[in-house]
Amino acid sequence: MTLFGPDNLPYGVFSADGVEPRVGVRIGDSVVDLAAALDDDVFAAPSLNPFMAQGYDRWVAVRSRIKSLVGTELPAYPVDEVRLHLPFEVADYVDFYASEHHASNVGKLFRPDGEPLLPNWKHLPVGYHGRAGTVVVSGTDVVRPSGQRKGGVFGPSTRLDIEAELGFVVGTGTPANTPIHPDDFARHVFGVVLVNDWSARDIQAWEYVPLGPNLGKSFATSISPWVVPVPALEAARVPLPGQDPEPLPYLRESESWGLDVELVVRWNGEEVSRPPYREMYWSPAQMLAHMTINGASSRTGDLFASGTISGPAKGERGAFLELTWGGAEPIEVNGAPRTFLEDGDEVTISATAPGADGSRISLGEVTGRILPGV
Amino acid sequence: MTLFGPDNLPYGVFSADGVEPRVGVRIGDSVVDLAAALDDDVFAAPSLNPFMAQGYDRWVAVRSRIKSLVGTELPAYPVDEVRLHLPFEVADYVDFYASEHHASNVGKLFRPDGEPLLPNWKHLPVGYHGRAGTVVVSGTDVVRPSGQRKGGVFGPSTRLDIEAELGFVVGTGTPANTPIHPDDFARHVFGVVLVNDWSARDIQAWEYVPLGPNLGKSFATSISPWVVPVPALEAARVPLPGQDPEPLPYLRESESWGLDVELVVRWNGEEVSRPPYREMYWSPAQMLAHMTINGASSRTGDLFASGTISGPAKGERGAFLELTWGGAEPIEVNGAPRTFLEDGDEVTISATAPGADGSRISLGEVTGRILPGV
Repeated sequence: MTLFGPDNLPYGVFSADGVEPRVGVRIGDSVVDLAAALDDDVFAAPSLNPFMAQGYDRWVAVRSRIKSLVGTELPAYPVDEVRLHLPFEVADYVDFYASEHHASNVGKLFRPDGEPLLPNWKHLPVGYHGRAGTVVVSGTDVVRPSGQRKGGVFGPSTRLDIEAELGFVVGTGTPANTPIHPDDFARHVFGVVLVNDWSARDIQAWEYVPLGPNLGKSFATSISPWVVPVPALEAARVPLPGQDPEPLPYLRESESWGLDVELVVRWNGEEVSRPPYREMYWSPAQMLAHMTINGASSRTGDLFASGTISGPAKGERGAFLELTWGGAEPIEVNGAPRTFLEDGDEVTISATAPGADGSRISLGEVTGRILPGV
Repeated sequence: MTLFGPDNLPYGVFSADGVEPRVGVRIGDSVVDLAAALDDDVFAAPSLNPFMAQGYDRWVAVRSRIKSLVGTELPAYPVDEVRLHLPFEVADYVDFYASEHHASNVGKLFRPDGEPLLPNWKHLPVGYHGRAGTVVVSGTDVVRPSGQRKGGVFGPSTRLDIEAELGFVVGTGTPANTPIHPDDFARHVFGVVLVNDWSARDIQAWEYVPLGPNLGKSFATSISPWVVPVPALEAARVPLPGQDPEPLPYLRESESWGLDVELVVRWNGEEVSRPPYREMYWSPAQMLAHMTINGASSRTGDLFASGTISGPAKGERGAFLELTWGGAEPIEVNGAPRTFLEDGDEVTISATAPGADGSRISLGEVTGRILPGV
């Protein structure tokens, strides 16, 4: 059984011998050349943005058309023989902090004498803007960042970490002063990617007061090459774990939903964590509504991510900071005790979710290897 | 004496009756149509980005060519008869916090019992990423944002403020893992704009821990329509007020410099402040170097701003938060005591700087009016 069957159909951007980067859809182990298959130049662009900008009705029509073509002879390439590129041009990138388990763990680590959650946390999805220009596609090497840590000491980061997240890709935004209701999520969000928000904890800890993370994260954020369309995750919708206090009206959905996406984090090939997205406190639709409630416009290509996905169990934590309790409790990887990333390490985050009729679909993977600092 | 003489020559994007948006240069009270004047289609684009991407040598050559044409018959429009547009497409937007007076004032207001400056402040230029998609051109109305304030209370902001800043426009960036030396500033930064970083203090105060400002600022950031080329500010270079401790090597310039730019803030036409840029602690070149030291790439269209410009005197503060000491000490505007912005208020920030041979040049102005919340 393929995890890329007709209920999945994720979009990406590929190139091949003699084929410049263009939009493809993955079916099984093939990448279908959509510009050729549908005779439509919008897919000959080197990013999904022009297609996404065509809007919801068009996304539905194209998905339906592709489904009807599955099983027929299509212009396609074996997935092993193509190169995959960043699937869309990132407009603005916002990273949230939507896992209660993650926020509590970080709170206990950074503020051991205080309440784990800050007073605002259950009232709004806390988030910040990240660097859009350094979002890279899975497979891109990540050079260990240098920077300042406590006291103004300079050098390569000694606490380089991952954050396993989901990212949501805005297909069509809204102009200024047009907040998006959470029920309109699917009309604006085109699809979902996996995100690894690489984080240099030593740089971050020194710089982040009072304006938030900057250089501790801005060097690289990796995303998976396949954008899974929102309708493909219909069967993965689950109720939220529960919100107390009740969110403000602008954050209320007719029926609030999360996603039963199961992530797997592999460190040099060894599974070290299984973060469960269904445990997230704030829903994707609430994040979108929050981001626009102040009148901010949104655009094709905006990316908003969930923040680290951590479940209640230790083996469900989506960052090494939490898995190793700030480095104090090393975990065993290939027989050796490990805390943060060493040069040459490779981290791969993959994920699957329920598909139609009891099947499963894959969100692919996001992977990256650490190269020594400059 | 015009403040837009041959030593200034700022670039913008204009449209006129029958003329689609394209690049112009301001000379006196005229806007020269550069595509026509230089017979070069790079200036027929609706943004400066294609020209900026051509790089430093080309910027020098074009500026020299325009200077040689001043005084000749040129295809131009009266500045009163054109519409001015956002002069460039903003890639990533980073806002710094480079004024010691501003950071100290905010520290005293928000943390009255602690040290005004946090421990990292004199070691690195603290900054964060803002929302690039909501950067708007001067003259755009600003709708009062709604959002959550303390305790999760929702409504239109009651503490809407300004921040008077300078912004630096990256013409050509660097790929990943190629940090920019501060001495290379002028090869990468194309020009300077005025920035009003509108800020909803009540929203910001509730949301900003621990990840920094988000919705308190993401609704709108206004910039001036004229990008003043870096060489036009050569005569405005002044030494920094002084840095202690000595910055780390990556932040050291052969000769550190600030800019003697004098801003004027007018509230409904009445002058309320004169923020002096020469008082800034961190230099523009240091901000650029810091932003890239971790290996982050930079791109044509990146905008980084200084943060609020405040001098040591009360009448030199660049935000109403500081001018009115958190709203506790109203200032008189047109005979009435005022603290934060009311609907219908208009704020205009203008600036001038020394030009060649004792003359002065103008950076134009950035203005905006507050409309009632939705």
